Amino acid sequence: MNVVVQNIERADPDVVTALGVCGVATVHEAQGRKGLLASYMRPIYSGTSVGASAITISAAPRDNWMLHVAIEQVQAGDVLVLAVTSPTDAGYFGDLLATSAQARGCVGLIIDAGVRDVRDLQAMDFPVWSKAICAQGTVKETLGSVNVPIVCAGAQIDPGDVIVADDDGVCVVRREEAADVLAKAHARLANEEQKRARLADGELGLDMYDMRERLAEKGLKYV
Amino acid sequence: MNVVVQNIERADPDVVTALGVCGVATVHEAQGRKGLLASYMRPIYSGTSVGASAITISAAPRDNWMLHVAIEQVQAGDVLVLAVTSPTDAGYFGDLLATSAQARGCVGLIIDAGVRDVRDLQAMDFPVWSKAICAQGTVKETLGSVNVPIVCAGAQIDPGDVIVADDDGVCVVRREEAADVLAKAHARLANEEQKRARLADGELGLDMYDMRERLAEKGLKYV
Amino acid sequence: MNVVVQNIERADPDVVTALGVCGVATVHEAQGRKGLLASYMRPIYSGTSVGASAITISAAPRDNWMLHVAIEQVQAGDVLVLAVTSPTDAGYFGDLLATSAQARGCVGLIIDAGVRDVRDLQAMDFPVWSKAICAQGTVKETLGSVNVPIVCAGAQIDPGDVIVADDDGVCVVRREEAADVLAKAHARLANEEQKRARLADGELGLDMYDMRERLAEKGLKYV
Amino acid sequence: MNVVVQNIERADPDVVTALGVCGVATVHEAQGRKGLLASYMRPIYSGTSVGASAITISAAPRDNWMLHVAIEQVQAGDVLVLAVTSPTDAGYFGDLLATSAQARGCVGLIIDAGVRDVRDLQAMDFPVWSKAICAQGTVKETLGSVNVPIVCAGAQIDPGDVIVADDDGVCVVRREEAADVLAKAHARLANEEQKRARLADGELGLDMYDMRERLAEKGLKYV
Amino acid sequence: MNVVVQNIERADPDVVTALGVCGVATVHEAQGRKGLLASYMRPIYSGTSVGASAITISAAPRDNWMLHVAIEQVQAGDVLVLAVTSPTDAGYFGDLLATSAQARGCVGLIIDAGVRDVRDLQAMDFPVWSKAICAQGTVKETLGSVNVPIVCAGAQIDPGDVIVADDDGVCVVRREEAADVLAKAHARLANEEQKRARLADGELGLDMYDMRERLAEKGLKYV
Amino acid sequence: MNVVVQNIERADPDVVTALGVCGVATVHEAQGRKGLLASYMRPIYSGTSVGASAITISAAPRDNWMLHVAIEQVQAGDVLVLAVTSPTDAGYFGDLLATSAQARGCVGLIIDAGVRDVRDLQAMDFPVWSKAICAQGTVKETLGSVNVPIVCAGAQIDPGDVIVADDDGVCVVRREEAADVLAKAHARLANEEQKRARLADGELGLDMYDMRERLAEKGLKYV
Repeated sequence: MNVVVQNIERADPDVVTALGVCGVATVHEAQGRKGLLASYMRPIYSGTSVGASAITISAAPRDNWMLHVAIEQVQAGDVLVLAVTSPTDAGYFGDLLATSAQARGCVGLIIDAGVRDVRDLQAMDFPVWSKAICAQGTVKETLGSVNVPIVCAGAQIDPGDVIVADDDGVCVVRREEAADVLAKAHARLANEEQKRARLADGELGLDMYDMRERLAEKGLKYV
Repeated sequence: MNVVVQNIERADPDVVTALGVCGVATVHEAQGRKGLLASYMRPIYSGTSVGASAITISAAPRDNWMLHVAIEQVQAGDVLVLAVTSPTDAGYFGDLLATSAQARGCVGLIIDAGVRDVRDLQAMDFPVWSKAICAQGTVKETLGSVNVPIVCAGAQIDPGDVIVADDDGVCVVRREEAADVLAKAHARLANEEQKRARLADGELGLDMYDMRERLAEKGLKYV
Repeated sequence: MNVVVQNIERADPDVVTALGVCGVATVHEAQGRKGLLASYMRPIYSGTSVGASAITISAAPRDNWMLHVAIEQVQAGDVLVLAVTSPTDAGYFGDLLATSAQARGCVGLIIDAGVRDVRDLQAMDFPVWSKAICAQGTVKETLGSVNVPIVCAGAQIDPGDVIVADDDGVCVVRREEAADVLAKAHARLANEEQKRARLADGELGLDMYDMRERLAEKGLKYV
Repeated sequence: MNVVVQNIERADPDVVTALGVCGVATVHEAQGRKGLLASYMRPIYSGTSVGASAITISAAPRDNWMLHVAIEQVQAGDVLVLAVTSPTDAGYFGDLLATSAQARGCVGLIIDAGVRDVRDLQAMDFPVWSKAICAQGTVKETLGSVNVPIVCAGAQIDPGDVIVADDDGVCVVRREEAADVLAKAHARLANEEQKRARLADGELGLDMYDMRERLAEKGLKYV
Repeated sequence: MNVVVQNIERADPDVVTALGVCGVATVHEAQGRKGLLASYMRPIYSGTSVGASAITISAAPRDNWMLHVAIEQVQAGDVLVLAVTSPTDAGYFGDLLATSAQARGCVGLIIDAGVRDVRDLQAMDFPVWSKAICAQGTVKETLGSVNVPIVCAGAQIDPGDVIVADDDGVCVVRREEAADVLAKAHARLANEEQKRARLADGELGLDMYDMRERLAEKGLKYV
Repeated sequence: MNVVVQNIERADPDVVTALGVCGVATVHEAQGRKGLLASYMRPIYSGTSVGASAITISAAPRDNWMLHVAIEQVQAGDVLVLAVTSPTDAGYFGDLLATSAQARGCVGLIIDAGVRDVRDLQAMDFPVWSKAICAQGTVKETLGSVNVPIVCAGAQIDPGDVIVADDDGVCVVRREEAADVLAKAHARLANEEQKRARLADGELGLDMYDMRERLAEKGLKYV
């Protein structure tokens, strides 16, 4: 059955934004190395980042009808996340849909398929992480669903989960774990700041992390 | 038999240029979604676009001899389009060939293989769409043909056909259909401009395209 | 047996630097078209180049322990070159390791696996050529070796060999052949400069290289 | 947190077996074209099929420790289904593990990674669907979980779900939908049997499915 | 415009059959190394071969409607050849369509997409060369064309062209060149038979082909 | 410089043969998990295995000239191992070369490129492990070398090294380590035989390998 779930819960907006600032690598570590989407998900232009609540879309291959349906469900600060039921590189999304989504407050798109009009999207400052860039268009024939659990690029994403994306890729944080993950991410960043200063001064990781003894125990020989 | 066809017909230069301005996604739609090259054909640097008449080249794998032959056939506003008879990533083209081609008025290269000297090519403002970037050089041993029909990255291209290329990929327009496709592309752009304004104002695609009734008929449920 | 070789020979630093200036395509040609790494090795951001002596690392899949060991062996002007014993896209290297490496004078990383924190690495001006960008972290469980012969992205690399890398990819020059290859590369560049001027003036490669007769002999027909 | 869930519910064994007899293509259609694993999941030898209840495993990359843990949870008629938290082709499974699994009644393995000893596995009549065949071994260092929900080759699989696999690939059926899907699959097979007889007699699908009018309406021209 | 061309010319049936007996490698060589489809086109089971006249199909992605249309155009000894307008692995063809095609005398399928029911197809002795095996089904929504020129797996194929396929892949022979190519293929086979006997007796290719002098001229050194 | 090294050392023939009987997975483990070729190297037909001394070939892309040169160097029990200097899928080897090689006592081919006539090769019982099957032929224009060190499918192979290949893939054993690796492989097989019997009796790996305590220490919870 194809459904549109209209009321979803979101995490605290300040937490969502703050997770985006932490970045993918830090957030992924902070939550125990889970939630990473496949590494073929790449930004269509570099230098952008997003922390946002997921509006999820399950779409048929080469059919972008549900994107129109999903945009109505967007609130300011949301990101569209589209999974397909069969692999395709077709271009589901271009500048018109981006104009519509941006007008509703949407801050980006994560799509396990293709997009087009990529220069326009960059000019609009509308970030996209996708599997492909492809001008091949889509149809509007087959229903899908909006705001149901999906599997996107190998990761399970529920509506309202937090999406963190930057030049390193895309990561999902469970909505109910967002505040906890943020705390861990902040602790991690503070800890890294100290380490960075010591490493920049020339201290070796071998010493800072006390690795020499364990390396010797495992049998590493210096010759 | 290996031939060089010296006199080819081209489309009206104003039409060719105007198609380039319309862009790949628009032109591909305007001509009924045909003529797109495979999505692995990517620009070696972003932000460029081309509308140009094709000088076609059928080349042996890892043999760039025919590029020298083809450059003699170039007129101002032409683009070189190279297909290989067996797949290869070898670098057929670099800054010397680009210098020669540019001196003859060539405005770019479409190649279903590799190129090299990519930083020099960017500095020269010579755009290339290719399957690969690879420093591996080629030989000059085996004949091919110039200005014969080719299949490049999955699309059939005849000499004098119009090539449109930008950050979305590469599309071919039949020479004899160029004016007609341009008219349809312009109509499409005008139509999109109106839609863009309405969508930017917050109107939903669901309403603008009258989709709600058909979605309900197909069984979409809002919960 | 896992070893760290502490004293390696390097080529003359001036030769190493000068090879980097020549660039990958020229150096690869100058040494008889050998030493090129697989074309999937791409810079994480464009516009950089490196000429440097290799500190080689053989690492277990998804285990970056040996990077810490290797950094101690770095001298100013060295580049880290990491091969894995089984394919992986995991992110072995990020901004902390780059800070440490840069503090020791390391000028870049060549890695047949993944990296992360790519925006930070670009901000630090620390160039990397890698197979993947991936936020997935690694462990520190299994020993590898440092400064032993490795096969990286299909090319054999010995410690102290010269690495040349730019937007065209990555090439290795045997340490003992470095001076000879540099001489050949310089000769090639001088020769190309003359050719470039003639081609820019509109002279055809067909004439400059005396190709017409051989093409006719092989049977090329102009129609 | 890493857990082993010891008591899971399974579908009716007769239903599970019968779904396997129906085959992947039929079951996938019968349940509305959902649940198909990625098409890179291939049998290591052809001519086998499975209908079985899933013991799910979430494993670290190149670490097969959890397979030993999972085998203790196997009941007769179960199939092991292993997902990895980062992509790898390493060989997690060979003839010793197969011997152990088979002794517990396990009827096969679905693994989004590699296996080895494939000739032995064929001789044992132990079917496997995998992403790769690779002799590279694994370690036993990092915990995972058993009988938790996983995403394997792009499909979500819960413990106790029904796995159907044959030469066409692998499909998952939700445990609670198994009986319903089986009824639909049987209806579909009965219906197909009639169609097959008519088609074998030379009747055209165009006539049997009454397609001619709709094709004409859409504009198909016979010339 | 979508059309079905009902009357196509075919090559002499005896020539078509005889080309199939010669096999792909021989035919490809005999016609000057042209017409080979991409090497990702593989038989779904090994040990089969085909020489047949092409009924060509241009189909929309994930839409198998035109297969039903095409089967009406089949004559005994024809092979269906399907190209898609955008890449897809979906399973266009299974045992029901094969039953219908076989009833009309169709001897096989060449498809630049996926198929399913592969064990049934093998049991029916209906050979298929495809890009993928995938149980994902298709729809019947979008028109295509039958018996128009297509580009399939990188090769141009006109209706009535001769398809030769075996375990080495798939090759197309222009209809009007079929008799000439067959003569060259037979000459080649006769010539190979003599060579095979000499090589089986232990004579070296170096001697049989008089290679030693040319190798020495090029500079090969024996050490 | 292109050379043919005529006298190479080989390992003890009994050791070579016995390594082949042990199989790839066992040999790879026995020598510390090194020497495995990339997993894309697959047998062209299943059910074969080889233990043989390597005649190495470094060949230009799409140029099989050196295979003729190499066959003269073959002794009974040798295997040809061909690496290319740039990636290609072209078909370097078919039934004529196999006839010649077999007449000299060659027992198989390992090739990081393509082969053709695969059905004939199977009928001749001549095993091949290759990257591709492709009917595209090659030329005889460019010299390579025979019996020099090569990198084939990511592994370094010296002439006279031992090649072990079966349905699991291909592994290389250093000539001077062959006897030692064989001893370790035999010990491993003996050990596995005992384990297999215990596992077949239903004993769990968890108990046989004493894993339970370490799993608990690492934090695995049973629920």
